Amino acid sequence: MAASELEKIIDGIAADARSASLLIQNHSTEEINRALLAMAGYLESEKTTLQAENGKDLEAGRAKGLAPAMLDRLTLSDKTIASMVTGLKEVAALQSPVGNLYEERVRPNGLKICKMRVPIGVIGIIYEARPNVTVDAAAICLKSRNAVILRGGSEAFHSNNALCTLFSRALEEAGLPAAALQFIPTTDRAAVELLLCKDEQVDLIIPRGGEGLIRMVVEKSRIPVIKHYKGVCHVFVSANADMQKALSIAVNAKVQRPGVCNAMETLLLDSGLDLQKRKNIAAALIDNGVALFGDSESRKLSDKILEIDEKNWSDEYLDLRLSIATVNGLDGAVSHINKYGSRHTDSIVTESPEEADAFIARVDSASVMVNASTRFSDGGEYGMGCEIGISTDKLHSRGPMGIEDLTTYKWIVRGNGQVRG
Amino acid sequence: MAASELEKIIDGIAADARSASLLIQNHSTEEINRALLAMAGYLESEKTTLQAENGKDLEAGRAKGLAPAMLDRLTLSDKTIASMVTGLKEVAALQSPVGNLYEERVRPNGLKICKMRVPIGVIGIIYEARPNVTVDAAAICLKSRNAVILRGGSEAFHSNNALCTLFSRALEEAGLPAAALQFIPTTDRAAVELLLCKDEQVDLIIPRGGEGLIRMVVEKSRIPVIKHYKGVCHVFVSANADMQKALSIAVNAKVQRPGVCNAMETLLLDSGLDLQKRKNIAAALIDNGVALFGDSESRKLSDKILEIDEKNWSDEYLDLRLSIATVNGLDGAVSHINKYGSRHTDSIVTESPEEADAFIARVDSASVMVNASTRFSDGGEYGMGCEIGISTDKLHSRGPMGIEDLTTYKWIVRGNGQVRG
Repeated sequence: MAASELEKIIDGIAADARSASLLIQNHSTEEINRALLAMAGYLESEKTTLQAENGKDLEAGRAKGLAPAMLDRLTLSDKTIASMVTGLKEVAALQSPVGNLYEERVRPNGLKICKMRVPIGVIGIIYEARPNVTVDAAAICLKSRNAVILRGGSEAFHSNNALCTLFSRALEEAGLPAAALQFIPTTDRAAVELLLCKDEQVDLIIPRGGEGLIRMVVEKSRIPVIKHYKGVCHVFVSANADMQKALSIAVNAKVQRPGVCNAMETLLLDSGLDLQKRKNIAAALIDNGVALFGDSESRKLSDKILEIDEKNWSDEYLDLRLSIATVNGLDGAVSHINKYGSRHTDSIVTESPEEADAFIARVDSASVMVNASTRFSDGGEYGMGCEIGISTDKLHSRGPMGIEDLTTYKWIVRGNGQVRG
Repeated sequence: MAASELEKIIDGIAADARSASLLIQNHSTEEINRALLAMAGYLESEKTTLQAENGKDLEAGRAKGLAPAMLDRLTLSDKTIASMVTGLKEVAALQSPVGNLYEERVRPNGLKICKMRVPIGVIGIIYEARPNVTVDAAAICLKSRNAVILRGGSEAFHSNNALCTLFSRALEEAGLPAAALQFIPTTDRAAVELLLCKDEQVDLIIPRGGEGLIRMVVEKSRIPVIKHYKGVCHVFVSANADMQKALSIAVNAKVQRPGVCNAMETLLLDSGLDLQKRKNIAAALIDNGVALFGDSESRKLSDKILEIDEKNWSDEYLDLRLSIATVNGLDGAVSHINKYGSRHTDSIVTESPEEADAFIARVDSASVMVNASTRFSDGGEYGMGCEIGISTDKLHSRGPMGIEDLTTYKWIVRGNGQVRG
């Protein structure tokens, strides 16, 4: 595609999304819910068409030699579609915070001032070849009455195109502006760079995918970005730990689902903890198939622990490998976490309330836990009902992000003719 | 300075600020207040030294031919210093939100989850040649227990250096880490670009100054930026307006202090408003020395109204010039504001509650007002006690920003051994 033609397309998409965002913000939650449920219906009634379009992507993917895991994520199986339907119904059932008034105050001059929760406006989602994200992310953005621009991985182009066509139809059917959902109709990579410069029309970019994709977005974007780099989560077993809790939390945090961002990547053992207890924890992990990489002190716990390289303390393995370090009490644990962690989720196992409070105060992470598995760091587990992602940033939103995180506020000032003296 | 040497300096500053941020977050508000009051004392006791350093900047500025307004802002007069002292005392007197717990919930599995308000971490302030910003901005950042990196305009280098030296001494005297305040000890412009890449250490950049400075920061920064582009504020006088309120608000919003961001730049008159009433408003503004630039319909109100060029509807005049448009009711006003405004502050004058509510719902600006002068859009007027700036962004903070806007939250999860099933 010619550069000027592509520019025209992206200009149009950004402008249309901005206009639609000004309309959709004043539609009712009932109308939005109607659209979400209509989309759930379409996913079921148009399943054959969707899977035929998805088949084109899968065929091209196989020809291109995509890895099996990637083909798996690309597949719109009956199960994937059913889970998208469930997701839409859950999001439709959630309360919307839009329109809520808070921080109300009356000033000495009689001005009545408050904040009102409002949609952010236009949100761009840039993600990899996972067509389920198309529906999940769009649903959360629309529920909070934002317009959304979707740019999925090129390998899922036909699937995403088919899903977005249905979603636009569902929006129209509910009386909402179809332009509130924008699909970038090209796999040209230059489209992303053009989109990232549209800071007059687009209010927020959420990239979802590997670290390479996210770093590219951060570097090129003039639009604010909320991102998730990685989850290098720690569990610190203090000398004051209850051993039963320590054993079950350490094993659960690593083994229950090692491929996700809230799984433990580093175990920190207090040097003040009884040697036999430390050996038991290492043995429990090894028994569960975990491959341990440790510093020299930790390697004394089992001859199966391999030597770790300094640079690996920041690794997100996403499998059954685990770093293990012996640290000097709370101070040692906190320094290790703040130096090598990714500010995602870190947990302490301790029976000392003072130590727990100090850990909470000093660990600089989005989620800080006491006597709980890091695996709980999740929108659903926190009671948010849905999740658009987990932020490792500090601005606007931190940790699991739900519907409210896709809103902002405006100041409302009501007077009766006041002027400034 | 050699590039590698500069890089080493900025690396060191970013790393030191990050370490200090982890320390200062756990000091008490009392200690912070002691430092702020010690600095207030130094401003008075070291006034002669400060003014001597400031004299060097002023002399160089005069030799360089700086404009009188710029020299004025650069001057550390007795009055400027007194107002910095007052500012420090006011910030010391404010409540700190750090440590507050909120959104508490207990999950069905017994996990106790809440959010805790915490400092953002390291904040970089990039600003022009106004040495008072050095003290005002540092005080607000430190009060909210952040570390701060200051980079002021090169014309104020000696003044800023002297102020920061005193502030570091005040921090030490209060038992706080002096490294929590970092001054970039060079006027080399490359230092800013290096700083903007330090996204591992610096959490937020706040640029303060002209549009050119801010656009440069947004383009180069990998660190989240909260910014204020400009204030193109509107007052819309509806056909349902009380004329006495309309006259006083229009004149106050434009004339009381035209050089600031919350002054009115465009007056919108409802075509349904009686012609004589519209003429009276135009006449009142002209009588107050305002130069009007209008569309053809508005030019019928007085032969003193000059023709406006389409491109000027987005102008921030910052003086007694004013754009004037005649619009078709609420719809016309809302479209004009959302098209040409800067999402800063817009006000409607109306006696109709329904019209007021529709204006509030549909105008996409940080502050939306009813029957009040736009000049009230200000941290002090909103009851925040101080202001680090006014955001025209939508993420994290919108409109006037106070101490709470320089904080974020962490999720606290307390369990008794829970693991995920």
